[in-house]
Amino acid sequence: MVENTGSLLDQITDPSELRKLKVEELPQVCQELRDFIIDVVSTNPGHFGASLGVVELTVALHYVFKTPYDLLVWDVGHQAYGHKILTGRKDVFHTNRKYNGISGFPKPSESIYDTFGVGHSSTSISAALGMAVAANLKGENSRKIIAVIGDGAITGGMAFEGLNNAAVNKSDLLVILNDNNMAIDPNVGGLSNYLLNISKSQTYNRLKKDIWEGLGKLNGFGPKARRVVQKTENAIKTMLLKQSNLFEGLGFRYFGPVDGHNVVYLAEVLESLSSIPGPKLLHVITKKGKGFKQAELNQTEYHAPGKFDKITGELLDCECQVNKPPKFQNVFGKTIIELAEMNDRIVAITPAMPSGCSLNLMMEKMPHRTFDVGIAEQHAVTFSAGLATQGMLPFCNIYSTFMQRAYDQVIHDVAIQNLQVVFCLDRGGLVGADGPTHHGVFDLAYMRSIPNMIVSAPMDELELRNLMFTAQNENHGPFSIRYPRGCGSVIDWNQPMKAIPIGQCRQLSEGTDLAILTIGTMGVQASRVVKMLSKDGILASHYDMRFVKPLDEKALHSIFKNFSHVLTVEDGVLQGGFGSAILEFMADHQYNIPLKRIGIPDKFIDHGTTEELFRDYGLDQQGIYRTAESFIQKD
Amino acid sequence: MVENTGSLLDQITDPSELRKLKVEELPQVCQELRDFIIDVVSTNPGHFGASLGVVELTVALHYVFKTPYDLLVWDVGHQAYGHKILTGRKDVFHTNRKYNGISGFPKPSESIYDTFGVGHSSTSISAALGMAVAANLKGENSRKIIAVIGDGAITGGMAFEGLNNAAVNKSDLLVILNDNNMAIDPNVGGLSNYLLNISKSQTYNRLKKDIWEGLGKLNGFGPKARRVVQKTENAIKTMLLKQSNLFEGLGFRYFGPVDGHNVVYLAEVLESLSSIPGPKLLHVITKKGKGFKQAELNQTEYHAPGKFDKITGELLDCECQVNKPPKFQNVFGKTIIELAEMNDRIVAITPAMPSGCSLNLMMEKMPHRTFDVGIAEQHAVTFSAGLATQGMLPFCNIYSTFMQRAYDQVIHDVAIQNLQVVFCLDRGGLVGADGPTHHGVFDLAYMRSIPNMIVSAPMDELELRNLMFTAQNENHGPFSIRYPRGCGSVIDWNQPMKAIPIGQCRQLSEGTDLAILTIGTMGVQASRVVKMLSKDGILASHYDMRFVKPLDEKALHSIFKNFSHVLTVEDGVLQGGFGSAILEFMADHQYNIPLKRIGIPDKFIDHGTTEELFRDYGLDQQGIYRTAESFIQKD
Repeated sequence: MVENTGSLLDQITDPSELRKLKVEELPQVCQELRDFIIDVVSTNPGHFGASLGVVELTVALHYVFKTPYDLLVWDVGHQAYGHKILTGRKDVFHTNRKYNGISGFPKPSESIYDTFGVGHSSTSISAALGMAVAANLKGENSRKIIAVIGDGAITGGMAFEGLNNAAVNKSDLLVILNDNNMAIDPNVGGLSNYLLNISKSQTYNRLKKDIWEGLGKLNGFGPKARRVVQKTENAIKTMLLKQSNLFEGLGFRYFGPVDGHNVVYLAEVLESLSSIPGPKLLHVITKKGKGFKQAELNQTEYHAPGKFDKITGELLDCECQVNKPPKFQNVFGKTIIELAEMNDRIVAITPAMPSGCSLNLMMEKMPHRTFDVGIAEQHAVTFSAGLATQGMLPFCNIYSTFMQRAYDQVIHDVAIQNLQVVFCLDRGGLVGADGPTHHGVFDLAYMRSIPNMIVSAPMDELELRNLMFTAQNENHGPFSIRYPRGCGSVIDWNQPMKAIPIGQCRQLSEGTDLAILTIGTMGVQASRVVKMLSKDGILASHYDMRFVKPLDEKALHSIFKNFSHVLTVEDGVLQGGFGSAILEFMADHQYNIPLKRIGIPDKFIDHGTTEELFRDYGLDQQGIYRTAESFIQKD
Repeated sequence: MVENTGSLLDQITDPSELRKLKVEELPQVCQELRDFIIDVVSTNPGHFGASLGVVELTVALHYVFKTPYDLLVWDVGHQAYGHKILTGRKDVFHTNRKYNGISGFPKPSESIYDTFGVGHSSTSISAALGMAVAANLKGENSRKIIAVIGDGAITGGMAFEGLNNAAVNKSDLLVILNDNNMAIDPNVGGLSNYLLNISKSQTYNRLKKDIWEGLGKLNGFGPKARRVVQKTENAIKTMLLKQSNLFEGLGFRYFGPVDGHNVVYLAEVLESLSSIPGPKLLHVITKKGKGFKQAELNQTEYHAPGKFDKITGELLDCECQVNKPPKFQNVFGKTIIELAEMNDRIVAITPAMPSGCSLNLMMEKMPHRTFDVGIAEQHAVTFSAGLATQGMLPFCNIYSTFMQRAYDQVIHDVAIQNLQVVFCLDRGGLVGADGPTHHGVFDLAYMRSIPNMIVSAPMDELELRNLMFTAQNENHGPFSIRYPRGCGSVIDWNQPMKAIPIGQCRQLSEGTDLAILTIGTMGVQASRVVKMLSKDGILASHYDMRFVKPLDEKALHSIFKNFSHVLTVEDGVLQGGFGSAILEFMADHQYNIPLKRIGIPDKFIDHGTTEELFRDYGLDQQGIYRTAESFIQKD
């Protein structure tokens, strides 16, 4: 072993190096790992609190289990920075979430230690069970499979589906419940309360002390440890409680809760558990943001805080600058309150994203009309449908990429019944640093296939407000409004709202050489392109279509009768998207002129700033300009 | 009250009539209702066992609760025949599931008593919670909301999401767990075992006797009943068990289990529970098929048995006739075994549909390689992804309409990671009598938007086998194969399999007047249309495209260079579907010729036989012929 003359972390180029250390050296590793994360993330923004909270767990897992042979599945992956640093990516960690840098989430193409690609919540138990069953079938009986899932993520329905199925499977699966009582916002729901009760309960704490301290003293492993654990388990059952714990009810052996910040103790517990067969759950109590005071105190703010001062914790990235357009999120958050004050049928629903989508504002002002339902997109949609059947008017705000998880509920529970539910799809289009798991590029395509659904996207903040107003002004049935992450383009956004006739586009410039049809915020880029083209003598009519469905047929007939070239621009997938809707209109009405589509090609788009990604895919001003120009020149 | 001279059921044109009866008359109502269901369903096929199992529960619910003011939400809705008959639809019940007849599922547009449209599983708790919250907000504090959910449906993740959220909501919500230990096939999973344990447990049975018999004697309701119930509840907690039941752990008050076939007792229990505030769950034990011996003994077969002899129970609708093409399901079920015998990486996964999709055959032969994961489509897909990461080759068979529920998992867990998972989408296209909730018409559109995904549909059984062979023969990444419900067109289907080059179409006829491009089984209709057209002197080239993605670009270039008219035919949605993919190809390569698309229009399609529905939407032979002819004539 390398002599311990300074940094232990520097020696760990691989978890096998970590495993050469003595168990009493682990606290130092944790300290160094935590310092390193604070150091790097303070200047290169990313997810912060979650990774700080699992420093000890991460070190203990890689210390005890033989990764990468043993398979470690991180749920969501916000918390996997320590894992990345310990598995050979310390030197590139400063490129985290950057263009061409490493991903902010576990990604199998990046490292053999990243066993499963994540980003969305609640997938780890199902994936890990698949791995465990595969190991069984291949006769790899010594391979250990571990899923690490937060108390927020475990409320997602598919985590329950995974637990339910794992319980009847005899595979050796260890689920570690990383319980910090938080999602991005404080966690909510019956299960959350249950976990809190367990953690706070005197009985459980006494239990923990008796049982786990006993366990902690074990030095021998294997059969002996197993016997002791089984004995202590029985002790729980027969002596103290006769309690059928919720997870035990489902068929898991439940262990815990244990302190997630005592790395030596965690390592001992994990070692003992590793020899126990069958499905088991270890309940670990951690603190989000652990070790960085401001992050512990303001857990939601420091979930992904942007740049900050690593000494004082002061946040340095204030995006809300004077004389800059606001974020779409803020406009949504303020406008929904304004509408709810006028229309008492309005209620608002978010699946665990109140601060992300700005419904926290309404939640403060109208707590009884604002519902954070936890990480539960499916429930969020059907709950909204139930509300709508009784005459309420739900605005259900879900990130575009997460709405994929409620696709069936949108069709089956809302659209078939033609209920008035307004879907506000936040973070539509490319989202930047979160990358392929989070880009909201499928929405226009998957929404427009659904009968009864109105599919709209505002070009700017004023249009967002007008569409929101329109959606509640009359009953138009299901109504989706899709807008991007981040700032818009209008500083003076707080104008009176007005209803937009359903399906009606607006013309922003007049010309005869080319018609440019845009949807959503791509219209802002296109407006600039129109000016660039005019300098070349190419005069373009620019139409902000506003609606992908229904289309403005009157305007389209006029366009196709009067133009020889039509260009469509969208920041969604080209396969079945907005441009295809225009092609369908053309075919249905026998217009046969050249139409060129600009949008997201048929591949998953990596992470990077949206500027970098738009540039790469020809969706920035220059790219649209080049395409438009060559389109006109060619014919 | 009408004098009881004969049928009580005939007097019940409305639940208010039921509520005029004496409680001791309810068993007779149940008997008559059961007989009526047997009578009608034996000649007009539909779902059978589920409705027989809840006859007593249905009568008790409408007897105790003030429907339609009180809101009753049936999960899935297979079991709601009794509900339909009691709520004014007895006279039209013989039209159940028929063209222009009543729906086989609750449907709000059909009756005010059908509070929520269902068909897919696990939605009732979320919907009912929405209704309960709406009642709160509107100050309708006397309104009762009841969700009835089966032990199969409650394993679906969104039911758990609903429970989790309801638990923290103070709304008066009564969830009735209708526990018959079955989905369509026997129910599986940890929760199922748990419920079985409760039901069989001596402690619980003693409990049930003590507590519920006590309750049963109550005559007074309101505050008095409430006090008694609370007292007995406390008795459970303090005296007997100190047991935190799983549902209580989540924050529900748990009551039961109670005998679901004692209607008088059920009515008393429901009456008592109706005055208890907050979220509560009543666990009712029923037998699927209750009262019809063969249905009790063969619960899967009698879930939806087709026509049968109402005396002997003999099944009369044997679809597997000599000299008739087999069902696609059977071909799938036999072929997957053949492939699995050759390729030991193959495993098969079904979410609770082993008999429906014919994986029951493989399950018998290779139990360790066949996984019924319960009603859990999301888990099914991500579990498959986990298996694939370890080199297994999962064939994940999910009905097209249910795959909507795992859309995010297909994108996030399979496609982004480019894993080799084969999705067999059973019941693609129009499904007939199950109607709008079950038509598998969105799949081609939602699948082809996903990068890395191969999207295919066989025209016949031979092609199904060849596509299945192709999907496992080499690693092509995610691969979807979509085929319809019911019989194919080839009797001699059991031919040796061969690999199909990815994306390659096949030409079935040659002509110069018209190119007809078809996908899937619509090719069979189109082949006949080609013959009809040739009699008119119109010579058509017919291409069975086989793949929606990737498209056969070589063939398409040749087609668009050589034809002046192109017709596309699909049994999926026109918005973003197969025809749109062809339009995109045309636009991308600047072909400007008339293209006409035939497919499912932008509306939800009602129930009826597939023949009736195809006829209505111009998808039958005559319809396609008419469209093709007028398309050629017009230009």
